[in-house]
Amino acid sequence: MTKKIAIIGASGYTGAELIRLISTHGQIEIAALAANSKAGQSMAEVFPFLRHLDLPDLVTVDQIDFSQIDLAFCALPHKTSQKVINTLPKDLKIVDLSADFRLRDPAEYKKWYGNDHAAVEMQAEAVYGLTEFYRDEIAAARLVAGTGCNAATGQFTLRPLIAAGVIGLDDIILDMKCAVSGAGRSLKENLLHAELSEGYNAYAVGGTHRHQGEFDQEFSALAGREVKIQFTPHLVPANRGILSTGYVSGDAAEIHATLAEAYSGEPFVEVLPFGETPSTHHVRGSNFVHIGVTGDRIAGRAIIITALDNLCKGSSGQALQNANLMLGLEETTGLMGAPVFP
Amino acid sequence: MTKKIAIIGASGYTGAELIRLISTHGQIEIAALAANSKAGQSMAEVFPFLRHLDLPDLVTVDQIDFSQIDLAFCALPHKTSQKVINTLPKDLKIVDLSADFRLRDPAEYKKWYGNDHAAVEMQAEAVYGLTEFYRDEIAAARLVAGTGCNAATGQFTLRPLIAAGVIGLDDIILDMKCAVSGAGRSLKENLLHAELSEGYNAYAVGGTHRHQGEFDQEFSALAGREVKIQFTPHLVPANRGILSTGYVSGDAAEIHATLAEAYSGEPFVEVLPFGETPSTHHVRGSNFVHIGVTGDRIAGRAIIITALDNLCKGSSGQALQNANLMLGLEETTGLMGAPVFP
Amino acid sequence: MTKKIAIIGASGYTGAELIRLISTHGQIEIAALAANSKAGQSMAEVFPFLRHLDLPDLVTVDQIDFSQIDLAFCALPHKTSQKVINTLPKDLKIVDLSADFRLRDPAEYKKWYGNDHAAVEMQAEAVYGLTEFYRDEIAAARLVAGTGCNAATGQFTLRPLIAAGVIGLDDIILDMKCAVSGAGRSLKENLLHAELSEGYNAYAVGGTHRHQGEFDQEFSALAGREVKIQFTPHLVPANRGILSTGYVSGDAAEIHATLAEAYSGEPFVEVLPFGETPSTHHVRGSNFVHIGVTGDRIAGRAIIITALDNLCKGSSGQALQNANLMLGLEETTGLMGAPVFP
Amino acid sequence: MTKKIAIIGASGYTGAELIRLISTHGQIEIAALAANSKAGQSMAEVFPFLRHLDLPDLVTVDQIDFSQIDLAFCALPHKTSQKVINTLPKDLKIVDLSADFRLRDPAEYKKWYGNDHAAVEMQAEAVYGLTEFYRDEIAAARLVAGTGCNAATGQFTLRPLIAAGVIGLDDIILDMKCAVSGAGRSLKENLLHAELSEGYNAYAVGGTHRHQGEFDQEFSALAGREVKIQFTPHLVPANRGILSTGYVSGDAAEIHATLAEAYSGEPFVEVLPFGETPSTHHVRGSNFVHIGVTGDRIAGRAIIITALDNLCKGSSGQALQNANLMLGLEETTGLMGAPVFP
Repeated sequence: MTKKIAIIGASGYTGAELIRLISTHGQIEIAALAANSKAGQSMAEVFPFLRHLDLPDLVTVDQIDFSQIDLAFCALPHKTSQKVINTLPKDLKIVDLSADFRLRDPAEYKKWYGNDHAAVEMQAEAVYGLTEFYRDEIAAARLVAGTGCNAATGQFTLRPLIAAGVIGLDDIILDMKCAVSGAGRSLKENLLHAELSEGYNAYAVGGTHRHQGEFDQEFSALAGREVKIQFTPHLVPANRGILSTGYVSGDAAEIHATLAEAYSGEPFVEVLPFGETPSTHHVRGSNFVHIGVTGDRIAGRAIIITALDNLCKGSSGQALQNANLMLGLEETTGLMGAPVFP
Repeated sequence: MTKKIAIIGASGYTGAELIRLISTHGQIEIAALAANSKAGQSMAEVFPFLRHLDLPDLVTVDQIDFSQIDLAFCALPHKTSQKVINTLPKDLKIVDLSADFRLRDPAEYKKWYGNDHAAVEMQAEAVYGLTEFYRDEIAAARLVAGTGCNAATGQFTLRPLIAAGVIGLDDIILDMKCAVSGAGRSLKENLLHAELSEGYNAYAVGGTHRHQGEFDQEFSALAGREVKIQFTPHLVPANRGILSTGYVSGDAAEIHATLAEAYSGEPFVEVLPFGETPSTHHVRGSNFVHIGVTGDRIAGRAIIITALDNLCKGSSGQALQNANLMLGLEETTGLMGAPVFP
Repeated sequence: MTKKIAIIGASGYTGAELIRLISTHGQIEIAALAANSKAGQSMAEVFPFLRHLDLPDLVTVDQIDFSQIDLAFCALPHKTSQKVINTLPKDLKIVDLSADFRLRDPAEYKKWYGNDHAAVEMQAEAVYGLTEFYRDEIAAARLVAGTGCNAATGQFTLRPLIAAGVIGLDDIILDMKCAVSGAGRSLKENLLHAELSEGYNAYAVGGTHRHQGEFDQEFSALAGREVKIQFTPHLVPANRGILSTGYVSGDAAEIHATLAEAYSGEPFVEVLPFGETPSTHHVRGSNFVHIGVTGDRIAGRAIIITALDNLCKGSSGQALQNANLMLGLEETTGLMGAPVFP
Repeated sequence: MTKKIAIIGASGYTGAELIRLISTHGQIEIAALAANSKAGQSMAEVFPFLRHLDLPDLVTVDQIDFSQIDLAFCALPHKTSQKVINTLPKDLKIVDLSADFRLRDPAEYKKWYGNDHAAVEMQAEAVYGLTEFYRDEIAAARLVAGTGCNAATGQFTLRPLIAAGVIGLDDIILDMKCAVSGAGRSLKENLLHAELSEGYNAYAVGGTHRHQGEFDQEFSALAGREVKIQFTPHLVPANRGILSTGYVSGDAAEIHATLAEAYSGEPFVEVLPFGETPSTHHVRGSNFVHIGVTGDRIAGRAIIITALDNLCKGSSGQALQNANLMLGLEETTGLMGAPVFP
């Protein structure tokens, strides 16, 4: 039987990507779309690329009758999300795509986001939404917190290696190259075509990016000790994609074997043959992750490169994957579309 | 029951796009993939974005057992295609994506392509593959000739108007802006990122582009008299998309009404509200066509703008749409994926 | 002796482009830079690419001592410009880059811009700044109105032809492809990299773009009768460039000869050999204009394609060219830099 | 008095960039342009963006009368360059832009390039062309070897730090993001717009890129011991630019002070205020280098980011800077053009 979902925050890129994915899903019906600032508009006005679909018009959140909804996606900005979720029925299944429920410790949340959390009790309840590592908890969860897109990418690189103890923990570096849709539909000068096209730069250098909080939480828990990595994001002139170049100490062959084993049954994660390197081109528009491992000429050093689509696997695709589990549907439904190339 | 298809010429962009579309089709199985120059390689080597699929390795055409094949797609360069098709079983259903069978008149073919046709009798047999206008013939055809991508775009703009007699026939101009994948995987200096990115230019100016032959054939047949339009293609720094800006004489409201009526039952063609203009962004990666009509401040003049994805609706999507008909499947199967935005 | 100039509106793209050009000019000194909203900041903060230059910090307009200034460039938004210029000394030489003084007729101004002009008497005084056609008037002018970038491009195509009477006046079409810097540093969704990159569309279709007012004024004056052309601008994913594809009736060879003759002594305008087509790539970052003429297969029809850099020749380069004349300097000083390719 | 130069290999990007820079130099005359494969063609045919210049047509190398030439630039592919230079007069001043004379040790050359060097004695004679560090030797040299563009970028980051002993030598990582013009005008599938635009990837991972040879040679000489760094280049969808993100151990403030001091008198190298990060946007089309230093949240770790234009400062701009020195001209002549933004 078809499941009914609502999308709260349907006028942003992650909301639109959810609609794109669900449009050919087959077992999920979009029953309501909310976007307070654009309530009353049709989706064809807000996102003309969805014009061919028969979608409900945008409404405000309080106009939705949640008794008819099996699951709600919250694709709102952080801070807004926790406030809105506070007003929703307490038994409603929710996949939150914001940063609000990723960090379990209220102190860590405040450290990285600057404000006291408005829904502290739900912070404890929320399951971290990295499907491949929290599958059972997600299937049983009421509230799932979608991960940061950079945080997801880095964890695909490192989690199996930290868990297996095959890399050093004190000299990990992740150098990430991020496409611009990760910044959302924000109106900022540096996101204009004229200022982004044809150039690139680092930002949030020196360990100040908020996704560090997720790395700290997850890697330290896995290792059973504090793990602090170096992480530098860069903005590159492309719309979709994250490429993470990881520098670690360890045996490259063992690292490759560990990753290949860890992901051997995963439908979306491909570990390339040893020595091959992935490209964001080859995962664009899809829910797939490509991981490549190479040794360095310096013995005991390895480079691990991971590519995914920030908007799909890094956000909305992950959210749908989690929703499938929460709704008792086959996990891959609606997500097997091949990447778009060229 | 699942239909078995072969793709001949699977190492180019249109072959790869066919595989992308078929990968979630459900009723078609890819039984063989041929590419003589890359025979022996896996598709993961040739197109790593298809790595997650379980596909047959590339073979040469003569290695395929066509008795097991329900339909073959030929995605070869023109001139090569007619030679290869000449060697295939005469009862094999074929969708040809090349230019070889688009022009029915051998003299016209020679005029535009420079050589005598090697399969003249099949030229007469082939059905022109613009699905929306040749649906019944295609369903009954053995050999369907996929249209030129520019030719398709221009015909979506003009066919219903010429048929209805609501525009002048002697002052039609189509100014087209074409993305680079239309040139295929050719190694030419002007297709390099360094020489295409950040600039744009016209080419084949003055009525010399080969897709003019298709316009001449189709529009003249529709009008019952010779129709010659002006058509200027431009190369723009994008990978997918054709935007055709059409300048015609006629009543803009009548033109809009004629197009809206003509396409009212079509699953893939959307006529926008009067005065709205389409964008290639909003059809990218999909089989949809968006058409907008606007009046000019000069009375009796109208502008008709049509957008589609050259690689999908302009080529491989159209081919699959035709194959669905030829195989007795629902026409839209595998083709309802929403555009990818951003 | 070095001339002192001020730039009012130095925080936008045209202001920055002026600084870029003047930085190697040699005979002009930048004495003051104003930008009310960013007063107090250094140019290195506002435009880090100018970091190596020793420039005055940004001030408000009223902080400038104009008695020390030989000429002021006004690179402000339209409507703002007329108000600011109203407050400047009445004997100050000014090159205005806004739209405010392009239309001489207050009624035409109001028709296209919607408001009553705040400096009607200066409208009459201002000289239209298309250097190649108003050279003597500009050299003697106090106030010069920089042209619209599209308006400049179309006039390079058509002025000599209308003046010589070698084309029909009632069926002229200019289809323009414009890069995004023409929209300035405005924060709008459709100017974001995520929404512009990889797609393109027409805008202001049907004769509603404001640069039509300039075409009407200039072409009608040249022809001695009303001339109304069709003009459709398109936004393409590039940062600099305008490519105008012009469709006219007339003899292509005569058209080519007329243009070649008209521009034979011009330092910045290159008429290509007959049948060649220009590209925006080949004028990017420069003050050069390339014009190509081709005949059509339809007798009596010709296509004229003109390419220039909207930010340089279409705006700031033109402004500097005019300022050179107004200051008694060699017209080409600071403007002979070759295009940047790739 | 004007110096006469020849450019051998004028049909590639570095040759064209040299012509662009020299076109407004004022004290250098282009007396001959050679490109064996395109001899007989005009530069307007090969690079239409240089159409406005009065340049000699392309000839073969042996058609040049070198007795009239003060200095020759060799912008040929590596291996070809050493053969051609072998045939030139032994007293001719040469700036070579290829890789052929960068490595002084023939064994190192063979290790990285695979072949025995054809001009071993000149290898010893050649001066390494990183102007800021070999200024006096270059001024006195007959043959100067232009550096690799990545090699230049990494050395701007690291040389003063290694020389001053303020960073660890055993854990240096340079993660570089390189624009596509660095690959030259090569016809390869991965350099096509369709395959590069909108995606990015690493290449030559694990210490296999040839510019490693230059790092090994130069850093080991500076340190007085073997220094091996990790270096990973990435190809990003832009035409000009290298951004190097360097990860080192050391005190960030001391590192910043050391770099600021080292480059305090340099006309082209800008060390940004502590904590700021450069962008390739802000050096594009220019000879400038921007360097930013940031501390990490992990004590004792610093990130140093360096941006330059690979084609200008990384190649042809550097070559002209060296030629100015060799010809007794002011070092900065022709090189002070501001970056092009946007």
